[in-house]
Amino acid sequence: MSLRQAVYGNLSGMDEPRTITVELGTRSYPIVLGHGLLGGGFDLARHIPGHDCLVVSNETVAPLYFEKLRANLGTIAIESIDLPDGEAFKTVDTMSTIIDRLVDIGANRDTTVIALGGGVVGDTAGFAAACYMRGIPFLQVPTTLLAQVDSSVGGKTGVNHSKGKNLVGAFHQPLAVLIDTDTLATLPERELKAGLAEVIKYGAIADEVFLTWLEENMCSLLSGDGDALAHAIERSCELKAEVVAADERESGRRAILNFGHTFGHAIEHCLGYGEWLHGEAVAAGMVMAAELSDIGADQVDRLRNLILAAGLPVEPPALGAAKLLQAMSRDKKIQQKALRLVLLNRLGEAVVTSDFDQAALELLCDTSA
Amino acid sequence: MSLRQAVYGNLSGMDEPRTITVELGTRSYPIVLGHGLLGGGFDLARHIPGHDCLVVSNETVAPLYFEKLRANLGTIAIESIDLPDGEAFKTVDTMSTIIDRLVDIGANRDTTVIALGGGVVGDTAGFAAACYMRGIPFLQVPTTLLAQVDSSVGGKTGVNHSKGKNLVGAFHQPLAVLIDTDTLATLPERELKAGLAEVIKYGAIADEVFLTWLEENMCSLLSGDGDALAHAIERSCELKAEVVAADERESGRRAILNFGHTFGHAIEHCLGYGEWLHGEAVAAGMVMAAELSDIGADQVDRLRNLILAAGLPVEPPALGAAKLLQAMSRDKKIQQKALRLVLLNRLGEAVVTSDFDQAALELLCDTSA
Repeated sequence: MSLRQAVYGNLSGMDEPRTITVELGTRSYPIVLGHGLLGGGFDLARHIPGHDCLVVSNETVAPLYFEKLRANLGTIAIESIDLPDGEAFKTVDTMSTIIDRLVDIGANRDTTVIALGGGVVGDTAGFAAACYMRGIPFLQVPTTLLAQVDSSVGGKTGVNHSKGKNLVGAFHQPLAVLIDTDTLATLPERELKAGLAEVIKYGAIADEVFLTWLEENMCSLLSGDGDALAHAIERSCELKAEVVAADERESGRRAILNFGHTFGHAIEHCLGYGEWLHGEAVAAGMVMAAELSDIGADQVDRLRNLILAAGLPVEPPALGAAKLLQAMSRDKKIQQKALRLVLLNRLGEAVVTSDFDQAALELLCDTSA
Repeated sequence: MSLRQAVYGNLSGMDEPRTITVELGTRSYPIVLGHGLLGGGFDLARHIPGHDCLVVSNETVAPLYFEKLRANLGTIAIESIDLPDGEAFKTVDTMSTIIDRLVDIGANRDTTVIALGGGVVGDTAGFAAACYMRGIPFLQVPTTLLAQVDSSVGGKTGVNHSKGKNLVGAFHQPLAVLIDTDTLATLPERELKAGLAEVIKYGAIADEVFLTWLEENMCSLLSGDGDALAHAIERSCELKAEVVAADERESGRRAILNFGHTFGHAIEHCLGYGEWLHGEAVAAGMVMAAELSDIGADQVDRLRNLILAAGLPVEPPALGAAKLLQAMSRDKKIQQKALRLVLLNRLGEAVVTSDFDQAALELLCDTSA
């Protein structure tokens, strides 16, 4: 880890913090992005409507960043709770534990929940904030690449069910998303790569120019170059903010953000949550979705090669078609019993459709048997 | 029970079903109200967007009305789950049980949850519908007076926490509320009276003319007169629909619907859920709130007498001020640590305020020690 920290040094890709706004009318909010912000640039207190907060973190992240976060909170009264680390703890029980803590500290409708950590912390804490007193204020301070570019933005909160990923949850937009890119210096390499899967996703579904940029800069990203990471996060957040603003509750276009996820969720579910990281499963899922898409083999290869370059898997683990297809049958995008997939019209443009070759799908899943 | 059924007979207060619309833009929905509708007048299938549903009921209501409900569902595929009966089962665990059932039947985003029963069934099933896949369609078929005039309308769903009433929940509007007033024929007398507490509430907070009507018709209501009950339900739903349309998520005016509830919830919590019915606790709470209001003693007496006439309690059980005040300190209307109460400017007009006599509040709670 010390070597990686030395390599990362100060992620000085940006001199000034940047702000991207998620445009949702009265519920619009800023994504503030910069390096070293936990060292004093956040002024978190400014984003908090009341006088007290509960910081939800986990046993890995809290020792690294809780004290820095506290220094940004001024006179706000602070309580905290640390969850166990890992996707296996993203459950209704963990959400209930956070609710119990909110009750114990006498939290009211003007108490703010601050999620400090990766996607599991953000999704679970956000769901607790959505449900406590039918919704209290909520701030995201994501510390993993995956959370910074994806899960912290857009208001999807939730937990897993023993039979499916993110089956229980709520739409609950945060008041702000505060991204200190310096937190990536302590991120394990495997998690950095997993986060890059979601970054690649944005290029594949919505921005071919960004995809080209990723091809040209993958080495820099993997080596922790501050400029490169900052640009990747910023462009990812811009693309996500745009899609979410157009379709907050996923009645249509927002579903394209699920590119690779129907397969990915099924892989995660079949292996047991935490075996493969979410981003790893999505990576393999994106290649599967590309193969089902009516695009040329050269375009599939291009996406596969980029994912390979990021050090991510390009095919599912050996699970057997039946098991994988069964898990996919619980996908949230299903309408009138028909599975819908996010496929590509071309690299840079995605579509949600139930018009795909069922035999090809089964074959694709079967190769993993 | 057979005597009461004979007395009620056919609640033929209305010849034609009536419809009240809750105006919420794209989420507007109808409250359809009439007698004998479960016998064929509902055409429930028309309100269901997909092809399947889960009917959530309880062990008391299901034997009475499930088959009638089923007859209204045409070709819709029907699954069902019956909860244990009682406020004690309005918990996160029960909500999880409903979620498990949704997963088991392979429910998707176009599966409709139908709540058939009283407030506990509606609130718990509604919360499950709100959370499953972050929200699926939901229909209310309330069978108690309390659910018909209050809990089924307005989209508040949720469950109790061991430390407070309705502390965990969501705003999730139904697609429709379908009220067959004939279901009141099987309602135990104690529950009918408890429902009248919420009916009286609407008069007290928003309609002095309706309050006068209630004074003149309380005997008819208690004897189960169809005309009288139908009018009481209709006017209550109109008043609630109006308040909800103006302030769906309770950022302001909607809180007046909580008249008597801060005290009532505290009473229920201190006694243990189910000891007093919700409406009974609210009845005593309304008298307490009236006594704290800056209105004349004659107006307080007028409200007290109406509540007495409905056979409801007008003072809290002997609990002790400390315990009651402690329970009230978890009220959801608290802002910046200050307790806010719904008080009366006059009978027919309510206000939410933290401007009340703290000593008088303590004294009021103390008389119950």
